[in-house]
Amino acid sequence: MSDYLIGPTPDDTRLTRGVRGRDHEGRMVDLRVVEERPLTIYLNSQEIVTAMTIGDHPRWLAVGYLNNQGMLLPDDVITAVDFDEETETVVVRTDRATDYEDKLKRKTRTSGCAVGTVFGDMMDGLQGVSLPAGQVRTSWLYPLAQRINTTPSLYLQAGAIHGTVLCQGDQTLVYMEDVGRHNAVDKIAGWMRMNGISAADKMLYTTGRLTSEMVIKTALMGIPVLVSRSGFTAWGVEIAQQVGLTLIGRMRGKRFVCLAGEERLVCDAELAHVADEPRKSGRKGAS
Amino acid sequence: MSDYLIGPTPDDTRLTRGVRGRDHEGRMVDLRVVEERPLTIYLNSQEIVTAMTIGDHPRWLAVGYLNNQGMLLPDDVITAVDFDEETETVVVRTDRATDYEDKLKRKTRTSGCAVGTVFGDMMDGLQGVSLPAGQVRTSWLYPLAQRINTTPSLYLQAGAIHGTVLCQGDQTLVYMEDVGRHNAVDKIAGWMRMNGISAADKMLYTTGRLTSEMVIKTALMGIPVLVSRSGFTAWGVEIAQQVGLTLIGRMRGKRFVCLAGEERLVCDAELAHVADEPRKSGRKGAS
Repeated sequence: MSDYLIGPTPDDTRLTRGVRGRDHEGRMVDLRVVEERPLTIYLNSQEIVTAMTIGDHPRWLAVGYLNNQGMLLPDDVITAVDFDEETETVVVRTDRATDYEDKLKRKTRTSGCAVGTVFGDMMDGLQGVSLPAGQVRTSWLYPLAQRINTTPSLYLQAGAIHGTVLCQGDQTLVYMEDVGRHNAVDKIAGWMRMNGISAADKMLYTTGRLTSEMVIKTALMGIPVLVSRSGFTAWGVEIAQQVGLTLIGRMRGKRFVCLAGEERLVCDAELAHVADEPRKSGRKGAS
Repeated sequence: MSDYLIGPTPDDTRLTRGVRGRDHEGRMVDLRVVEERPLTIYLNSQEIVTAMTIGDHPRWLAVGYLNNQGMLLPDDVITAVDFDEETETVVVRTDRATDYEDKLKRKTRTSGCAVGTVFGDMMDGLQGVSLPAGQVRTSWLYPLAQRINTTPSLYLQAGAIHGTVLCQGDQTLVYMEDVGRHNAVDKIAGWMRMNGISAADKMLYTTGRLTSEMVIKTALMGIPVLVSRSGFTAWGVEIAQQVGLTLIGRMRGKRFVCLAGEERLVCDAELAHVADEPRKSGRKGAS
């Protein structure tokens, strides 16, 4: 499997901080824990949101956020993306004049996260969305999961972070991490937009839960497959079924459950060759 | 250990839905997955937010949310909490006339979640906050964790959910769950407010990560101890140290790390009697 185009950077010392504490045996321990930094995103002259992020890809985060909120339209020409490290702001400029005052007033707290997300708008955005019906092969999924689970990352080293990986067939392309799960997805969307990457033949793998908001966001990005180690919500499953998204969750070791798009799933992997993961005693896992 | 005052209700069929899918061996499987329902919260005549929730405790969620956003002040008299199941709305009424138009315009997406959270306001609210310095005994923590990890819950049965438990000494008091972690905490805050429960001698145990927002929320609720299975962010640790919150994370089996308030921690448990939990190979865990 070839290298990630963009991968995690766990050794970037700006993303973590050393802290000292005591463990259960009273010993001093030194840990590295992830940073959270505010990043204020402007669209043209309008302040949109302040996101707390580890701070590795502010430009992609800004573009992806605005894209996924429907504030950057597909035909918009982005004329500049200016990041000022000192003021921790990004200004995304477009040829089109924009004003989202109304949108900014409406707010919904969703199951995962969102600020300024007009959940109703997101649901409206799904009207008539029907994702391309591509095959999903288990002979892709298992190597992808194996690769992702062994890639050195802040997730593995420092914890308290979510990762999302853009994949194509059995190749991992872009692995983004952040404290907020939606930031990781938005960074991928930003990278895709800035690089003119198509979504129709891609898959998204996430460490987070398959909630309605996660499914909606993936569908609005045009990505027809969403995979996670974690579980589902009922509405997430329902929306996936409505828009033709293939939804696979609780993927650990050999096991997974497909709750939408089973007809597109090709079970061609040799299961005997797939390493299993012992079940945690009783716990399905929270995220 | 006595029964929870309020505990999880995993058998409440309104909170989950049966869905059918295929597993990795191509077999049909039936699962129960958690529901997400919108709940629109009003303060007097002003619409504040729509929260996605499993829907078990709408009144406590509304009161707790408003309390934790600083929109309900400590001296406010709540004159009514009206829940309308059909329109999925809760109206919280106070003797004081309220208007939070300005607060609603400012938005920050935090590492976890928040909508309408004025993060700057939350940080301001911490000015001069110094939490009561109580002891925390490991002889409390281990039985609490054991109890919580074996309590029948949606977390154990359906996954994709977060739990937060209010504790006192070695007693679990109130265990709230929800798809959104902050909802679970807000429900506890609502219950405490409606029942006149003091915070100074309590602890909060959560399945979620110890991010800045989680630490701030706990501190603003006046609870001086926060414990989690999960990891920390740097800012979460820093804030905890500043306000005198005892912060214990990565608590699994015998192990934990205390990154703030070590001086208040009394390691009086007999470790040989505490069941251990095998380390997951390599993974610190995302949430």
